[in-house]
Amino acid sequence: MIQPRTLKGFRDYLPAAMIPREQLMQTAREVFRSFGFAPIDTPTLEHLEILTGKGSDETDRQLYSFEDNGGRPVGMRFDLTVPLARFAAQHIGTLGTPFKRYHIAPVWRGEKPQEGRYREFVQCDFDTIGTTSELADIEAVCVIDALLRAIGIDAFTISINNRAILTGLLESLGLADKTTPVLRSLDKLGKIGREKTANEMVESAGVTAEQADAVLRLAECDGDAESILASLPEITGGNETAAAGIERLTQIYRGALASGVSPDRLKIDVSIARGLDYYTGVIFETTLDELPGIGSVCSGGRYDNLAGLYTKQHLPGIGASLGLDRLLAALESLGRLSGVSKPCAVFVPFFDKGHRDDYLKLASQLRDAGIGVEVYPEPKKLGQQLKYADSQGFAVAIIAGGNEWEAGAVQVKTLATKESQDVAYSHESPDALIEAIQAATS
Amino acid sequence: MIQPRTLKGFRDYLPAAMIPREQLMQTAREVFRSFGFAPIDTPTLEHLEILTGKGSDETDRQLYSFEDNGGRPVGMRFDLTVPLARFAAQHIGTLGTPFKRYHIAPVWRGEKPQEGRYREFVQCDFDTIGTTSELADIEAVCVIDALLRAIGIDAFTISINNRAILTGLLESLGLADKTTPVLRSLDKLGKIGREKTANEMVESAGVTAEQADAVLRLAECDGDAESILASLPEITGGNETAAAGIERLTQIYRGALASGVSPDRLKIDVSIARGLDYYTGVIFETTLDELPGIGSVCSGGRYDNLAGLYTKQHLPGIGASLGLDRLLAALESLGRLSGVSKPCAVFVPFFDKGHRDDYLKLASQLRDAGIGVEVYPEPKKLGQQLKYADSQGFAVAIIAGGNEWEAGAVQVKTLATKESQDVAYSHESPDALIEAIQAATS
Repeated sequence: MIQPRTLKGFRDYLPAAMIPREQLMQTAREVFRSFGFAPIDTPTLEHLEILTGKGSDETDRQLYSFEDNGGRPVGMRFDLTVPLARFAAQHIGTLGTPFKRYHIAPVWRGEKPQEGRYREFVQCDFDTIGTTSELADIEAVCVIDALLRAIGIDAFTISINNRAILTGLLESLGLADKTTPVLRSLDKLGKIGREKTANEMVESAGVTAEQADAVLRLAECDGDAESILASLPEITGGNETAAAGIERLTQIYRGALASGVSPDRLKIDVSIARGLDYYTGVIFETTLDELPGIGSVCSGGRYDNLAGLYTKQHLPGIGASLGLDRLLAALESLGRLSGVSKPCAVFVPFFDKGHRDDYLKLASQLRDAGIGVEVYPEPKKLGQQLKYADSQGFAVAIIAGGNEWEAGAVQVKTLATKESQDVAYSHESPDALIEAIQAATS
Repeated sequence: MIQPRTLKGFRDYLPAAMIPREQLMQTAREVFRSFGFAPIDTPTLEHLEILTGKGSDETDRQLYSFEDNGGRPVGMRFDLTVPLARFAAQHIGTLGTPFKRYHIAPVWRGEKPQEGRYREFVQCDFDTIGTTSELADIEAVCVIDALLRAIGIDAFTISINNRAILTGLLESLGLADKTTPVLRSLDKLGKIGREKTANEMVESAGVTAEQADAVLRLAECDGDAESILASLPEITGGNETAAAGIERLTQIYRGALASGVSPDRLKIDVSIARGLDYYTGVIFETTLDELPGIGSVCSGGRYDNLAGLYTKQHLPGIGASLGLDRLLAALESLGRLSGVSKPCAVFVPFFDKGHRDDYLKLASQLRDAGIGVEVYPEPKKLGQQLKYADSQGFAVAIIAGGNEWEAGAVQVKTLATKESQDVAYSHESPDALIEAIQAATS
């Protein structure tokens, strides 16, 4: 006998975990579509040369790669951005621009398995490609806002910044070539504090204490959005790149508010840098006000050129990624997941053997009215079937034995309260039952 | 520069192909859920020993397998049944029975690429495990019926048979040990005709001409369902296994009708055998009346024991698989796919630069009313934007320039007919526009 087990770092999704997961993905799809983003899919396996050297050394090391049966070196995608770049280079002539797509699909990384991190996980990305317009930037904020609201989260903060502001400041300080090490240090500001960050900048990026101070003055610029926007020109010393970045950031902030994003959900935070990403313009992070510690649940930004490795066509764009697993963990800690193992609310015990077809007909009529129903498959004792119903998390049971069928009525039992009511029902007149169930499950 | 290309046998899904694909999967999910089937997911990669030797020699040969970075032999799943067996063996103690699940996920087979066949394709399975009840069999028929109707197909035929009837006949003929070669020959009856099938049975299965004739008499038993059911006892010579199989088939047929399946969509066809599958009881095939040549779009059946290789627990079950790619190809040949590249119907050209935030606000209000809207990201000429709208397949454009914004009205243009109407709109009173759009897109 073979031991049934999953690979280290991989997991099965049982119904109680898969139901909210599937709901979350469906909600994301609906929001993306409502903004005109269209779905695409790409193969799990790509030519190895498409994937290697595109992320970091780490992603190369973690890549699942092998030779296929035809001797071709292939790899499993480790994100959805590299396949998007390859896809765009290959198809943009057919698709035209602007091209707005979403892609919800698993990716694989041979990471060291640890609490809450798996070697297979789903990414959920949306991007607008082929335009540098600020409207696309504003819209990205609106999409994030709509996503979180549709998921049922009210208290969240979308932090926005523009990478160009820091780029401009570094230019004005003569540090343009030290952007990467400065960003790397700056990313630690929240964790290690001002002094240590300044020291690290001096030591590892080789800047002067005065330069580090100027960078930190920018990162620490705090307050309400309009006053930050007003103080940024002075802090960045009138540099042109920074000025354009400030103007764009102002447009995005005001445009998002005008589009209906609530001001208490939108924040300008010039300290966010997303240092190790490839963004060049606006950047986003989204935190849950009740769970700030879990980090950003939706991050993204604007990039200059998506697919330079595969095509000469210049493809600027903007996009973000919803952190599905992080959000599900958050919803769980907030007590927002029901924990049910069943995707429908109504249970019909089958305990009077002679009426099998009546149970089936009743269930079919409810389904035609849009109500999901499970009929127990075997005529076991009623108590046993109701125990099953409780364990699965059904909301309502419809109980009908020989007497009920004869009397033309069924019992509608709310399982949480154990309360029952008699409701008239016959195959010819199902409406009263349909209404009672709709009332009991709404 | 790296050439952007996909691997042989793999493909990208562009929006026009992915939109109906995603809709079909969503419809399937909704139908499965309405019967109490719950979603699960399993890892793409499994320990190699879980996968090898479970299908045929062919699936072993076609398996994508390799050593992962930790030196473990692993493989990519080639179907959803083997992972379900492993999953059930591992979790059935937690899940309990009956366990009803669906699983929609890609699988990989290194087949020789050919027209319409790919090395990565999505399977869409549902199963009820842990019961031998005929109610589960009836329900499987109802699920197939509901699936096809929900997809929008009216003319289809679900053919049902019970493998036990042939098994019983073979028993009575003393051919129980020749089931596999007899089934293999019988599977060709539709293609090569009676005489050649009989010859092949004699030659390759080693049965007598009389025995072949008896088997073919069963397979050719035709007519309306009740008359077939009435004639089967005589044809199978009163064998007990066959008699039980006939009784079960009768129950399923009548139960499905009683549940509301239309009699012209249900057929008893004792010639279907699904010879190379592992079914032991009822078997199903589903053909589209307008496209019988494409073969079955939903097939399945009852099996005795799902997970015998991984657990001592006996797990009988019944399930079927919806042929997603075949159905999409069918919908396309029937002209049922719209070919649009956009998942929302409404387009808002952004051509008066000074009113950017007004366009965004209008779009946001429509979305709040459940209407998907794309706003063009750049203030290009109106004609250019409308050309884009036509190419993408939007249904309606909402046109508002400076004059319109001042007058408190917008133009609603139906793109197919080029007809326009003026509709009152202001951010304070969006209802007339919402109603006009709902009317224009319904």
